Formats: sequence, C-alpha cells, structure tokens
Amino acid sequence: MKLLRINMTDGSIQSQDIPAEYRGLGGRALTSAIVAAEVPPCCAPLGPNNKLILAPGLLTGTTAACSGRLSAGGKSPLTGTIKESNAGGTAAQHLARLGIAAIIVQGAPTDDATHVLHITTDGAKLTSQARLKGKGNYATVASLFKKFGEKCSIISIGQAGEMKLATATIAVTDPENRPTRHCGRGGLGAVMGTKGLKAIVIDPAGSKRPESADPEAFKAAARVFADELRKNEVTSNTLPMYGTNALINVINQAGALPTRNFTSGYFEGAEKISGETQRETILARDGLAKHACHPGCVIQCSRVYHTKKKEYLTKGPEYETIWAHGANCGIDNLDVIAEIDHLEDDIGVDTIETGATLAVAMSAGLAEFGDAKAAIRMVKEIGKGTPLGRTLGCGAAVTGKVFGISHVPTVKGQSMPAYDPRALQGMGVTYATSTMGADHTAGYSVAPNILKIGGDLDPLKPDGQVEASRDLQVATAMLDSAGLCLFVAFAVLDSPAAFGAIKDMLNAHLGWNLSDDDVLAIGGKALVTERAFNKAAGFTAADDRLPEFCYTEPLPPHDTVFMVTDQDLDQLFVPLEEKYAAK
Amino acid sequence: MKLLRINMTDGSIQSQDIPAEYRGLGGRALTSAIVAAEVPPCCAPLGPNNKLILAPGLLTGTTAACSGRLSAGGKSPLTGTIKESNAGGTAAQHLARLGIAAIIVQGAPTDDATHVLHITTDGAKLTSQARLKGKGNYATVASLFKKFGEKCSIISIGQAGEMKLATATIAVTDPENRPTRHCGRGGLGAVMGTKGLKAIVIDPAGSKRPESADPEAFKAAARVFADELRKNEVTSNTLPMYGTNALINVINQAGALPTRNFTSGYFEGAEKISGETQRETILARDGLAKHACHPGCVIQCSRVYHTKKKEYLTKGPEYETIWAHGANCGIDNLDVIAEIDHLEDDIGVDTIETGATLAVAMSAGLAEFGDAKAAIRMVKEIGKGTPLGRTLGCGAAVTGKVFGISHVPTVKGQSMPAYDPRALQGMGVTYATSTMGADHTAGYSVAPNILKIGGDLDPLKPDGQVEASRDLQVATAMLDSAGLCLFVAFAVLDSPAAFGAIKDMLNAHLGWNLSDDDVLAIGGKALVTERAFNKAAGFTAADDRLPEFCYTEPLPPHDTVFMVTDQDLDQLFVPLEEKYAAK
Repeated sequence: MKLLRINMTDGSIQSQDIPAEYRGLGGRALTSAIVAAEVPPCCAPLGPNNKLILAPGLLTGTTAACSGRLSAGGKSPLTGTIKESNAGGTAAQHLARLGIAAIIVQGAPTDDATHVLHITTDGAKLTSQARLKGKGNYATVASLFKKFGEKCSIISIGQAGEMKLATATIAVTDPENRPTRHCGRGGLGAVMGTKGLKAIVIDPAGSKRPESADPEAFKAAARVFADELRKNEVTSNTLPMYGTNALINVINQAGALPTRNFTSGYFEGAEKISGETQRETILARDGLAKHACHPGCVIQCSRVYHTKKKEYLTKGPEYETIWAHGANCGIDNLDVIAEIDHLEDDIGVDTIETGATLAVAMSAGLAEFGDAKAAIRMVKEIGKGTPLGRTLGCGAAVTGKVFGISHVPTVKGQSMPAYDPRALQGMGVTYATSTMGADHTAGYSVAPNILKIGGDLDPLKPDGQVEASRDLQVATAMLDSAGLCLFVAFAVLDSPAAFGAIKDMLNAHLGWNLSDDDVLAIGGKALVTERAFNKAAGFTAADDRLPEFCYTEPLPPHDTVFMVTDQDLDQLFVPLEEKYAAK
Repeated sequence: MKLLRINMTDGSIQSQDIPAEYRGLGGRALTSAIVAAEVPPCCAPLGPNNKLILAPGLLTGTTAACSGRLSAGGKSPLTGTIKESNAGGTAAQHLARLGIAAIIVQGAPTDDATHVLHITTDGAKLTSQARLKGKGNYATVASLFKKFGEKCSIISIGQAGEMKLATATIAVTDPENRPTRHCGRGGLGAVMGTKGLKAIVIDPAGSKRPESADPEAFKAAARVFADELRKNEVTSNTLPMYGTNALINVINQAGALPTRNFTSGYFEGAEKISGETQRETILARDGLAKHACHPGCVIQCSRVYHTKKKEYLTKGPEYETIWAHGANCGIDNLDVIAEIDHLEDDIGVDTIETGATLAVAMSAGLAEFGDAKAAIRMVKEIGKGTPLGRTLGCGAAVTGKVFGISHVPTVKGQSMPAYDPRALQGMGVTYATSTMGADHTAGYSVAPNILKIGGDLDPLKPDGQVEASRDLQVATAMLDSAGLCLFVAFAVLDSPAAFGAIKDMLNAHLGWNLSDDDVLAIGGKALVTERAFNKAAGFTAADDRLPEFCYTEPLPPHDTVFMVTDQDLDQLFVPLEEKYAAK
C-alpha cells in the first residue's frame, strides 16, 4: 500500500511508501493521524496549510461485508476541529484495489483552473477540465464518466465546494454512478475546493483485490461476520425494510424528534414522512426499496426514490435528511424533501447541516415553518452563491449569527442531528464531547437508550450515559478505521461472535495478532489523537457543552432539559487519554 | 453611588447600593467585574443571560481633565470574550452626577416593543417609543431630544443594534447632541438590541457634581494634571492640530499602514487622506478643526467635518476610521470616508470592523479595491439588513467565512486596527493577547515603537515588545477604569508628575490612600478578571495568536513577518496573574 501525495502548488504527484508512523492505520485512524502530524492545528482551514486526506479502511477492498467506507479528513472549515467524515460508494474499494492507503492533497494552486485527478494502475495524473467549473455533482460525474469510462468511481465537489462554503461535502458515486454518497459533515468539500480539485476519477481496470495474509482464515471470519449481520433483527430486517428512516416514528414516539428548530420533541406530521410511508411511496413508483450503496453490503439500507412520474429523483433520503428538512422545518412532504435531497447532493452540501440551517433561518423569520417553497428556494440560493445562499451554506451557527438569533442548535459550530439531547440524554453526551462537533455517528447512544442494543438506559436520565457514549465512541472510531459501515454495530454490540469476526478478519487479512483490547485500541488511539489536535487548536472543556438552550428551555412533551453535569462530561475522555496517550 | 438594575423581562427597575464586591470600582474595572460575576461565561451573547453594563469611570463627573469616558461591558457577540468598549460624549458625566455607578441591563423582553429608559433625579422609567423602531441614531436622538429636552444626553443604538449584528455599536451624544461618540468595538450594541432597549435618555437637571473627599487636594491635583496635558507635545500640539489622523503619514512612513486588506504596509494615496489634508479641508469649509467630545477635555482632538457646501456631515473621522475605509480599502478620498463615517454612526456599526470587513469583501471579489461607490453601497446594505448587509454587519471573520477566503485580519474574531503587526511587532503582541480580541487601545504599543513615548523599541523587532505591551495594557485598563481618555497616556507615560496627579486625584476624590502600585493594580486586577472570564468561556493560548498570514506572508515594504514567539506571547499575563489573582 502507498500514500499518494498530490501537491496542488506545483502540480507534482508522489507515490510513497507508508512512513513508519502511519503504518498499520486505515480509514479514520489514518486520516486523523496524518492531519495531526502534518496540519498546523491553528492554520486557516481554507488556507494552503490545511490538507485533505482520503483513505479507505483497513478491510476495504476485501470481501468483508459492508467494508467499503471512504474516510475524508482535514481541519474542518465548519468547526475548526479535526474532522473525519466517511461515505459509502465505490471509490474506497477502488482505491484499496489500486494499493492506495491514502490520498493526501496539499498546497494551493496558483491558477484558477478546475483540476481533475485521474488514477489508474499506471499512476495518477492531474488535468484541467475547464468545462466542469461551477457544475453540480450530477453534471460533473456524468461528464467524467463519459470521458473516463463507466467503470470508474468518482469523488467530486459541487458548487458549494468550489465556493468554499463551510458545509460543502465530498460526493462519492454509488454503484449506479450517481453522486449520492457524501462525506457530509464538517465542510471538507470546501477544503477540496481550496485545492482547486474538482474531482478524483479512479479507474480500477487491471487492479485486484488486496491479498490477505491468511486467505482461508479471512474467508472463514468474513463468513461468520456476514452471517451475524444476516441474523440481527436491525441489520437483517428493520434497515433493509425501512432504511434509516425507520427511525422517524420511533424517535417521534420517544419525544426526541427535534421539531421546528428544536422547540419540540414531537412532530404531528411524522407519519407522512416516516419510513413506512417512504417504503409505500417508493414501491408504488417502482423505485428501489432496498439498495446497496457499495458492492458487498449485506444490509442494503439504501434505496432509490422516484418522482410521481416514476422517474429517478434521488437516492432514498436518509432519516437524518428527512428529519432535517421535515420535522425540523415543519415540512411533512416526502416529495419536497426528496427534491431538496437531490438539490443538496448536486450542489454538494451537508443535508443535516442545511436542514438545521433552514430551520434557524425560519426561526429568524426568513420563512414560516412548513413553507416548502421557501425551503427549496433557499437551497437553490446556496447553489447560486447569492449572499443569502453563501450564508446558509456556512451552516447554522453562521446563519444564527448573521440573522441575530441565539437559539442555534450547534456544538463547536456543527449542528446537532436528529435526536434532541433533552429527551435523549446520551446523544447529548456524544454531541458535547465528540471530537467532531455535534455528530450522532460519533457515538450512537440511540442504541442503548431507545433500541436497547448494547445496553438499557433511560433516555431521560443522565445515569450511565457518559460511560455508554465513551464505549460507543471508541467502537465507532474502530469501525471507521476498519472501513466498516457504522450499521454493523447493531449486530456487533450484542454479539461477541460478530465482534470476534471483525478481530479475526483484521488478523487474517493483515497478518496481525490483535486481542479484543487491541481492536478497541484502534478506535481509542484515534480519538486521543483527534482530541490532542483539538486541544492544540484551542478547544477546551468549555467547548464540550451543548448550546445554552438545552440547559434552560425544557423540551415538550417530556419537558426535560439536558441534565448530564459538566463534571461528568469532562470525565468522558479521561480514561481514554490515560490508556491510549501517545508515548 | 448606586447601581441601577433594569430587568427587561418584567420591566422592573431597581436602584441598589453597590454590593461589597463591586465597591471601589469604576469604568472598565466595574463593567468587567459585574460581567465576570453575573454573566455565565458560556452563555449565548445574544441570549437572555448576557447583560449590558454601562459605567462612568472613577473620576467621571469631577473636574479632572478628560475624565468623561463611558464604559460599556458584556459578553461580546463578535468575539465571545468579555468586552469593554468606551466612548466620550456627555452621558458618563451625567450618570456620575446622578450618582449612578453603573446601569445593568439584564433579561430579555417578551414583547417586541422599542423601549427607552429615561433617567432623571427622580429615578428611572421605561417607556415604549414605537416611532423609533428601525430608526438610525441621528433620527433617534433628534426625536428624543425633542421629547425630553436638549440638555439630556442620549445613549442609543441604530438599525445594526436592533438587528443584533455583531459589529453594532452603542452611540453616545456629544456636546452638540450628535450621536458621534461610540462604544464601537465588539458588538455591545447588539446586546442592547437583544434587550429591546433602543435608547437611554439621561436628564442631568437638578444633579450635581460628585463631591470629593478632599476638595482642595483634588483641585490641586486636577490642576497639575491639566498642566501636564498642556505641556506634552502630543496632547497639547499634535492631537489638537491634526487629531488622531496625524498618524496616517507617520504610520505610512513606518511601512505599517495596512493597505488593501493587509497586503502592504504602504499606501500611495496616504497624503490625500492625511491629518494635514483633513485639517486644510475642514478649515476651508468652515468646519471645526478642534473640538472636545465631552466637557472638560483639554486635548480637543475631535473635529467637525463639513461637506463641500459647508454643511455638517459628520465628526472629523478618526485615524482608525480613515485608515479602515481609506488605505485598507484603497480609497484615497476624504469626502467618501466622511460620508461612510456618517452612515456608520447612523446605522451604528464599528467603523474599524466595518472598514476591515469591506476590505475582506474586496479581497473576496465583491468589489475592486478603491471602488468608493461599492463601499458606500455595501455600508448602506448593512443599514437595510439585506442578507449581504447582515453578513458584512457581522464583521470580517464572518464575511471571510461566508465568502470563502482565508486572508482575514482578525484575532478572536475581531479585526485588527490600523497598524500592521508585521511592521509594528509590539502592536501584534497587544492584538494577540488582549482580553478583547485585536484592539489597539488595549495597549498602544505605537507609543514606544513609533512615537518613542514611554520607551524606545525597534518596531521591526520582537525584543522587549511583550514587556512593553504588558505595561501598556495595565496602564490602559487603569485609565479605562478611572474614566480618563486614553490619550492622557501620552503625557503620563513619560511624566511621573502626570501619573502622580492621577493618583492624587483618585485619593483626594475618593478618600483613598493609594500608592503608585495600587493605582496600577486597578488595571492589573481588571485584566486578570477579564482573562479569567475568557478562560472559563473556553479561550486558550491558541486564541492568543495572530492570523496565520501574519506569520507566513511578508509585508512590503519591510518584507517582515510577525516574529514574537508563541512562548513569549504566553508569558505576557503570567506575572499579572501571579500578582493580581483574586484571593
């Protein structure tokens, strides 16, 4: 495996052996290690000293089920923290097959050209593709597939990334060559934009699956792992049946569905945007009610959403997207949300942050809650780069500041996702403490609190939430480093056999001899590395807090506030820092 | 002396004796002590838990020369730090005459009314004045003087404060009843806006000068102090002759005049906007080339600027304002700058931050440098509250983020003023370390570096800059607490007699027995209080840094970068924290 280092200042490309300090790392652990070692913590995120890192996971490219995640890393223009954001799609597997452990994009171009990086078995080449300037992701990938062939995968940015907006995503094409999978959070698309890099085209022709150290042992472990995923209720039934949007009704019933900019935990229109309704709608329009975002996925929580005319509109919007523009904006119409999802994938902005931002704008009086036309218009303005659009494209915190309101649901400048921490205290712990800003994927406390997976906690009480979030954050960082989809956690959390299968796959594939503790250490060390970067960038315990209103405004219907103490929050990383601190 | 506590939630007003912990404090020391004690450091600056404090200094209301400053304090919407910003005008003296040590405005209104606080010898009263909603400062004070009498003083906000923009000022009327003196920096006008408070009208009728403990000793000390100001070259000649704008040619010659968004230290059009040209222009149009911003000022650095038709346009714009919109925007036309100055006073935005923001917008391509019409148009947009205007009204850091550029001259979110730290290293130390964000008044290192007052340092070298800035920051915080204009420092720094006169005035007026060290301790303690607040709000050494470009982009013509080490910056407050830490 090699590092591919792209210097945008002089256009030079270097393929180098992995230096000792990065060896044995993959996915998030690798992107975070490179950022921590090579990016000055106090640098300007949009300046030439930031770097963009793209890395497949340790198991990516193998036959391990659900192992096709691509991690993107850098210093976040949204939060100022270190950032890792990962996505499905086919690019990570192609990179792994080409023997590339990570792409490091650094420097800054001196020209204004629209660069495309083309990677084949023969090496990598930068070209200028002026026709792509200002194009959305859909037009960009269509043009590039035509030029470079349909079997490639493409990593690209839309207008938002080119405009260097702090919510810009990095899109990754799915098996149908659509730019629907996004490294969404934290604005790494803007970092790609500052590098003048519009897209990366990866041609896997002539590549081969990475060889495992012990192919037979790997095959056996991979079989156990896939079987475990096929046995688990969530990964074998709920997710394939309703997708992530199975959660709308569940979280609404729990009174934790943030509604109208986090002023209620219950949305009266939930049924209309639920996973059940979405499934019926998709089936009635000949969409796909089950779909894999990358080859080798046995869960297939993705879907394809059609218009009333039974034509492709977008991928099945995920729960977070449906919540962000639905309950959170008071909009109870799936077609509107799907249209916005398509627009946001095309422009290349984070659907969570954008939905949260629209709701903040509605709170500030720019539109009424529930005004679907206004929501669509505002998203289009982002793509056009009007002053309003650019402001919205910088996220909820900037929008709140510009429009002078203080009820803004962000931590470290990143918007809270689809679980109100006042009714789901454990999620508040993850939002507050995550090295990434408010992020549900960083430690999915919904599992023990609501789904009763990996524990049984009372979501309205602070008891045990810090410990649970800590364990989840460690496990998640490990999965993100292995290149595994977070959703395998539903099986892993309650099944020693599934966890053991991951350990066995890692050992068999990489020729290692990891213990259970060693496997978790992959995650623990990544977290400690990230936290040290943030500390050097100026983050303190005062940043590990929820927005003030979570402590002062009780949330209906439970009328609770966030009750985990500052002292308890500040304990979350202590044992990890003691255990995993770099020598 | 009393505290006047205004609760905007229920409209209640309470006049209370000064609690023990605030006793003996005035001006900045008092506003900072109240903020530190009563405002949660992590609260939302635009939320109901922030407070606005207005306090005259310890000597304000007496006959001490230049003692009429009004300190405003709160948690800054611009920086998130504690904030003190002070202004001249007549309000501070009226408050002191009414026996009011501080006004504390707290809570948040439940209605949308436009409140006015009216203070007389009979007490204070809140009324609603709907006709003032959305009005600029000029129309606001004209209406209020008509209603409440020409002998009042008025503290008010313009549209920017009502819109809660992070650069909104608090205007204070001058002796001619014009709203030209502003607590400019840090957006405290937005805090006043969140309180629903449009203006405070102070009627001094029936009030009397605060009595001194030893009137004869006070009179003697005050005479020495005034004599010292009349003897000093800067306070008796330079400032009365050319105003603060004497500096344009001086700083330009030093190669430290930030030009076109801090890309050069030399502006070829400096002569056209210099203090010398301004004086000629004012005299030719029958303006006032000398003017006191409050009664009792013996320096008279203020002026009145007329149009070509010899009609009042604005006060003589200050050096920082002329630089911000002149050299920094590539505009070499005093009439344009004066027109903008009038607009900004009326809308109520910080002229320094706004000029810096326009230059950032120009760097981002919104207009060409030197485009006066575009500059005027953008300032008008702030007043109108368009999306672009609101973004600009949130300052340089937000504007840089929204328009995707990284060359943004801010520290802690506040723009650097009119001295490039690469050619004036000492000013960089003050910008980096001040508790206020980048602020020249916090420790005016120009004195020892350029004017050779209070020391003789090489502005291009880091040697001795930390020590000098530390001493200046202490002295400044003391002056800000006494209610003295910062410009008395030019006399005080080199004259033990002038410093002794301040000590003697404080002792005679307040019945104290302070030593020289005790006098400085007033400033030192205020700084330590402010720094502790900032620490609790999450600020660290990583925030005590200049923007990245100051370290990486050499500034013509000297081609120097900022060379003071991080280690040295981090030492600045150490001896103060050891000496003045609260018990």
